Amino acid sequence: MSNEQTKPQTITVKLAERSYPIVIGSGLLNGGFDLSPYIRGSDCLVVSNETVAPLYLERLLPNLAGKNIATIELPDGESFKTVATMQTILDALVESGANRDTTVIALGGGVVGDISGFAAACYLRGVAFVQVPTTLLSQVDSSVGGKTGVNHPGGKNLIGAFHQPRVVMIDTDSLQTLPDRELNAGLAEVIKHAAICDLKYFDWLEANMSALLDKDPAALAHAIRRSCEIKAEVVAEDERESGRRAILNFGHTFGHAIENNLGYGEWLHGEAVAAGMLMAARLSAIDDADVERLSSLIQAAGLPIAPPAIATEDWLRAMGMDKKVHQKQLRFVLLKALGDAHVTTSYDADTLRQIIGAAD
Amino acid sequence: MSNEQTKPQTITVKLAERSYPIVIGSGLLNGGFDLSPYIRGSDCLVVSNETVAPLYLERLLPNLAGKNIATIELPDGESFKTVATMQTILDALVESGANRDTTVIALGGGVVGDISGFAAACYLRGVAFVQVPTTLLSQVDSSVGGKTGVNHPGGKNLIGAFHQPRVVMIDTDSLQTLPDRELNAGLAEVIKHAAICDLKYFDWLEANMSALLDKDPAALAHAIRRSCEIKAEVVAEDERESGRRAILNFGHTFGHAIENNLGYGEWLHGEAVAAGMLMAARLSAIDDADVERLSSLIQAAGLPIAPPAIATEDWLRAMGMDKKVHQKQLRFVLLKALGDAHVTTSYDADTLRQIIGAAD
Repeated sequence: MSNEQTKPQTITVKLAERSYPIVIGSGLLNGGFDLSPYIRGSDCLVVSNETVAPLYLERLLPNLAGKNIATIELPDGESFKTVATMQTILDALVESGANRDTTVIALGGGVVGDISGFAAACYLRGVAFVQVPTTLLSQVDSSVGGKTGVNHPGGKNLIGAFHQPRVVMIDTDSLQTLPDRELNAGLAEVIKHAAICDLKYFDWLEANMSALLDKDPAALAHAIRRSCEIKAEVVAEDERESGRRAILNFGHTFGHAIENNLGYGEWLHGEAVAAGMLMAARLSAIDDADVERLSSLIQAAGLPIAPPAIATEDWLRAMGMDKKVHQKQLRFVLLKALGDAHVTTSYDADTLRQIIGAAD
Repeated sequence: MSNEQTKPQTITVKLAERSYPIVIGSGLLNGGFDLSPYIRGSDCLVVSNETVAPLYLERLLPNLAGKNIATIELPDGESFKTVATMQTILDALVESGANRDTTVIALGGGVVGDISGFAAACYLRGVAFVQVPTTLLSQVDSSVGGKTGVNHPGGKNLIGAFHQPRVVMIDTDSLQTLPDRELNAGLAEVIKHAAICDLKYFDWLEANMSALLDKDPAALAHAIRRSCEIKAEVVAEDERESGRRAILNFGHTFGHAIENNLGYGEWLHGEAVAAGMLMAARLSAIDDADVERLSSLIQAAGLPIAPPAIATEDWLRAMGMDKKVHQKQLRFVLLKALGDAHVTTSYDADTLRQIIGAAD
């Protein structure tokens, strides 16, 4: 990779009056990028967690020069992605006398971003929101699309809102402290973007997977930019997920069923999606060679290519609860070819039974 | 009133792709108006409360012929307008396996409507919502504008969402069982609409107040229609309340402070708004004679014209927390003349102190 690609780059997510920039680069924290033009009033609540705050909270403050900063630290982990945790953010906003010009800033991974964004959506029926995602998964996934929310014991992300941020700042340096297992989990969504939309990007990932695993800044910046671009294009076409946006759920029907059966947090979301993508690819009418290419890339990223042991009835129950059920008819995101996904209710029921039965 | 005005009438709230009709009339329950064209899928969750359900739930079912109906009864009262109560609705949706095509139907007053609407806004990031308001207050207030939400111990309606219904069905017959005190409280908002926007309507209310108090169906239908029209016009100009919509908060800065100090539910919302409107009118640069007209009409409606005893510092604290604070500068909705309100940060501080102090 050339040095060119480590310079900060900006993508615009185009959503009419809710359009916003994603700024990607190295050295953005510690005041390398001024966030204050995106803060309407003078008061901010920075929401982080017990793992990320000690690493990055001090480094974020220079980016918010001249603002009044309150902070709240959440416990770390998917198991805390609940209404109860969101209420602690709402309580902090009320206690600080936050008004309509207060900005909520999420500093952390997807859980912090999803809960904070939902709290920002609900407080006074919506206050401004800024994201500083520090994990690869949140950088390539949560930073585009405006989906916020929390889990319910009955299912993942069942409660939430669409709430777009005013700006997303991605400092690739924050990935240097990310555990390998979480980096790999983020790569699952990167692979997903290539598999559903862009064969050329898939080729690039095959050629550069080892650079990504070595945390090469230029390779990471390229992958984050291209993944955000793909997601932004899909979301711009269909903000509320009435149609095409659903292709971003490739691997997620199976993936959510894995997470639902194991209990949230047992497998990382990206790991469940990785195994789920391969199950969806097997259910797709594509060449075996392409299924094999996907399997190899997933494996190269250090991700699981087979689901855990789950009884067939548990698969079905979990998939019946899944949000992608439309009029009680199961819909899947399948591949027409590698790099080209579509949403369909047409699939081979025997193959499906074989795929979920094989997990027993 | 002529019989003409008791025929069902439809107003359209114009909000581009979120536009919806409000149908007003007598005999709409018991199948008098078919709601099924507004229900996307086949599954509905009707949310009501322990007071309204025994009176009207059975009568609503013929309006939903052919649909699968689940129901949930909430406890009755403003004190239950909480996140915890909303969660019971979300639990019911999850338990019934509700999907994106499920419709939430609110049958009851403002509390039922606000909580149900917020649950509909949050479940799967937004499912369809239908309102069947059964109190005058909810008919003239909550049925237009899409404001949903719950209270927080730190303030009223601090947590919520904008979520527009697909249709609002108002059967004026449901007011026959409404306690007088609640009818009067609803008239506070009716008077408010006239006071802020329409002097001719104010004249009409002065002439017809006794017919309204006698629950004359034609008079009620006229007032509901005209109030919904006024609110719909204001909201259509400014859906997210960035400007003009705030005039609908006339009397509410003082009114919310009353509710906040007494504890929710001690005074009815409309009672607090009635006393609050008169305080706001006194803070306005209008003729004493017009303040007197407003006072007489409020009194004729059986509503309080003076606030309860609240210490000055408690007024100030409660108003400092109020949502209508903008950049820490108090903004009030005041009258330029009877029938013409505006939002302003310019007011006489001495008069304000006198108005608040007079309550001691």
